[in-house]
Amino acid sequence: SQYALPFSVSSLIAIQSKYDKRKVLHSIKVGIALVLVSLLYLLDPLYEQVGDNAMWAIMTVVVIFEFTAGATLGKGLNRGIGTLLGGGLGCLVAILADEVDRVSNAVIVGTSVFLFGAAATYCRLVPSIKRRYDYGAMIFILTFNLVVVSGLRADRIIELARQRLSTIGMGFAVCVFTSLFIFPNWASDELHRSISSKFGKLGICIEGCLEEYFRLPDEKENQTKGNLADCRAVLDSKSSDESLANFARWEPWHGKFGISYPWDKYLQIGDVLRELSATIISLKGCLQSPRQPSSTIRHSVMEPCETVGLYLAWTLGELGESIKKMERCPPKELVASKLQSMKQALSLIASPSKLGAVDNGEGLAMASFVFLLMEIVDKVEVLAKEKETGKEEEEKEEANTERAFLLKMMKAFVTGLLIGFLGISSVVQCIP
Amino acid sequence: SQYALPFSVSSLIAIQSKYDKRKVLHSIKVGIALVLVSLLYLLDPLYEQVGDNAMWAIMTVVVIFEFTAGATLGKGLNRGIGTLLGGGLGCLVAILADEVDRVSNAVIVGTSVFLFGAAATYCRLVPSIKRRYDYGAMIFILTFNLVVVSGLRADRIIELARQRLSTIGMGFAVCVFTSLFIFPNWASDELHRSISSKFGKLGICIEGCLEEYFRLPDEKENQTKGNLADCRAVLDSKSSDESLANFARWEPWHGKFGISYPWDKYLQIGDVLRELSATIISLKGCLQSPRQPSSTIRHSVMEPCETVGLYLAWTLGELGESIKKMERCPPKELVASKLQSMKQALSLIASPSKLGAVDNGEGLAMASFVFLLMEIVDKVEVLAKEKETGKEEEEKEEANTERAFLLKMMKAFVTGLLIGFLGISSVVQCIP
Repeated sequence: SQYALPFSVSSLIAIQSKYDKRKVLHSIKVGIALVLVSLLYLLDPLYEQVGDNAMWAIMTVVVIFEFTAGATLGKGLNRGIGTLLGGGLGCLVAILADEVDRVSNAVIVGTSVFLFGAAATYCRLVPSIKRRYDYGAMIFILTFNLVVVSGLRADRIIELARQRLSTIGMGFAVCVFTSLFIFPNWASDELHRSISSKFGKLGICIEGCLEEYFRLPDEKENQTKGNLADCRAVLDSKSSDESLANFARWEPWHGKFGISYPWDKYLQIGDVLRELSATIISLKGCLQSPRQPSSTIRHSVMEPCETVGLYLAWTLGELGESIKKMERCPPKELVASKLQSMKQALSLIASPSKLGAVDNGEGLAMASFVFLLMEIVDKVEVLAKEKETGKEEEEKEEANTERAFLLKMMKAFVTGLLIGFLGISSVVQCIP
Repeated sequence: SQYALPFSVSSLIAIQSKYDKRKVLHSIKVGIALVLVSLLYLLDPLYEQVGDNAMWAIMTVVVIFEFTAGATLGKGLNRGIGTLLGGGLGCLVAILADEVDRVSNAVIVGTSVFLFGAAATYCRLVPSIKRRYDYGAMIFILTFNLVVVSGLRADRIIELARQRLSTIGMGFAVCVFTSLFIFPNWASDELHRSISSKFGKLGICIEGCLEEYFRLPDEKENQTKGNLADCRAVLDSKSSDESLANFARWEPWHGKFGISYPWDKYLQIGDVLRELSATIISLKGCLQSPRQPSSTIRHSVMEPCETVGLYLAWTLGELGESIKKMERCPPKELVASKLQSMKQALSLIASPSKLGAVDNGEGLAMASFVFLLMEIVDKVEVLAKEKETGKEEEEKEEANTERAFLLKMMKAFVTGLLIGFLGISSVVQCIP
């Protein structure tokens, strides 16, 4: 065909093997981080400073290190904030409880453990908190509990808390270093790639459906382009897209992704893509229905339908490519004219002279097929518009970055403060 | 309407508030478990036995306690097995490394940390392992690392490992007790409820779509039964269903769920339901298309279509109810006859005398609507069959329980062994 698709099966295989390579890379990175943090035990001068608290650094690395940089940062910050809040509140309660006698002390501690534990657990079940701060709430409960109960026993509780915090900070620093500076694996890149590749996959699916429909019965064993599995994968991708967007929000400004990049727009485009794939699955069901007419009757509408299929695949492929490259190409007018000519071709098929000649039940099936194709064309039009507004929003965002920049800087400042605090406290501890 | 639907909006609200009540209950249970495990610190005789290792019990409770009993058990067993494997392997390497001099010792420890850490991390990324044993692999890395590096320092490493294991066992026992014996929240119940309620929701959606389609323009502001949000929720439910089925597999035999209950069947029914909801969304799109004819023309097909809609909603509702009650009612023949009469009604509409009179583009839209209804009827037929085979499989399973029973018993035995080992070691430790 003259319209070469930007996505082919071989490129999908390339993506798959690339993904495997990234898995191996990630495993190696985790290994490096573990060895680095184990040095706290292995090197005598370091061990003399931190002692058995080095355990907390190892624990932090094992628990925090995730596949993408955003997830690692998010978990690390959650852990830091949860530890600070839980530790602070725990110290407060422990000091208050210290004023009274032994029995009331135990009662106060028990009650506070129950109340804060139950309240924080309830918060973890609220969807909006669960999405981004689930881990932080868990660490809050853990730290609060540990601090408040050991406050009964340890006299130097502040000292203990400081030591643990600093070792956790060391673990976090090792994670951030290995995750962000050695071949970083950005969630934002992955979301970008996954959304833009879906366009091409759906285009191939549509083309494959039509090819199969118009194939003569004797050429059965031919290889079909694309299959329904891709469509189903797109349909089921909501939760993975959402978690990637969540992680991407934690990631700092890097590469082509500017400050406060509109990740929500990606999710909206993903929703439209899912609707499109639901329609494609319906189309496939319609084409495989036993009510469809014989192949000779099908051939009367073959030419315009195949043209529409090719145009659809081309448009989807181009939209995907332009999202991938973050360009405004293909020109809006070109896409619009393609869509217009597809609509004309379809209304031509729908004329009574074509469909009227066909038998009753079979005509129904074919009419439904043409109608679903029309619906798909409409959805692609919506997609093209969504993409356009997304691009505009992005540019508006870029023009109007001042507020966003300030916001981002404030976030970065708080993060830096936290990391700095942990870092300084660990340095202080290491000076004899 | 004479066919009262088993699901109404008010019952959905009841489910919602029931869910909230379960959230509160879960929070209270976590609070109780935390207080119980804090007693290790608060009561002097207990503290004298376990000492600062009580920390590990608190950590276990905070980390393991999940919303459903199955998730708690799964995480607990993962933690237990991961700790045992990691600890055992760590001891082995530490003892081996102890034979050589100080520097080679550090090299051996560092290399083994890197190799085992990277290998286990790669395993965590394999989808089939990730699904059920992700947490276990993480705990394996953590324990192996802690044991192997502190082996350099602690002489009494076996003693340390035994103490930690026993406190982890205590935490696990508290979790199992609170989660399984105080108002247990079974993942299997939730999956059962969620799958069976989807039938009713989709039925209401279909009815609502048809009602809206045939409504006269002047009665616009009427309340519509069900909306597309329910359909979309069903469409997006794959990941939550899968995780529930995962948790349900960890749960012991209880209530109406027998030994090796066919959870995969639920997932298959869920897939068919998702396909059905994709078709309903297409139907909705088709009905809202500007290509649809005016309401007067619509009314020519209103009566049979509404009958079909009611029958569909009735059939779906009945199927859902019978899954909910785990009965074979409604009789197969009754459902089959309903489906047959629906098909007849639809083929009546599809006759040329009805649709032939309509104008070209509008006829296409209406034909598509009727065809999609036919497709929906087909899908419901598939669902009814799936359900039937599910029921048969279940009964076959019950008749042929001997092998399954043995398998389950073996699993229970291993679990018991593990819990027993942890329990005994903690009791031994508490005897002065």
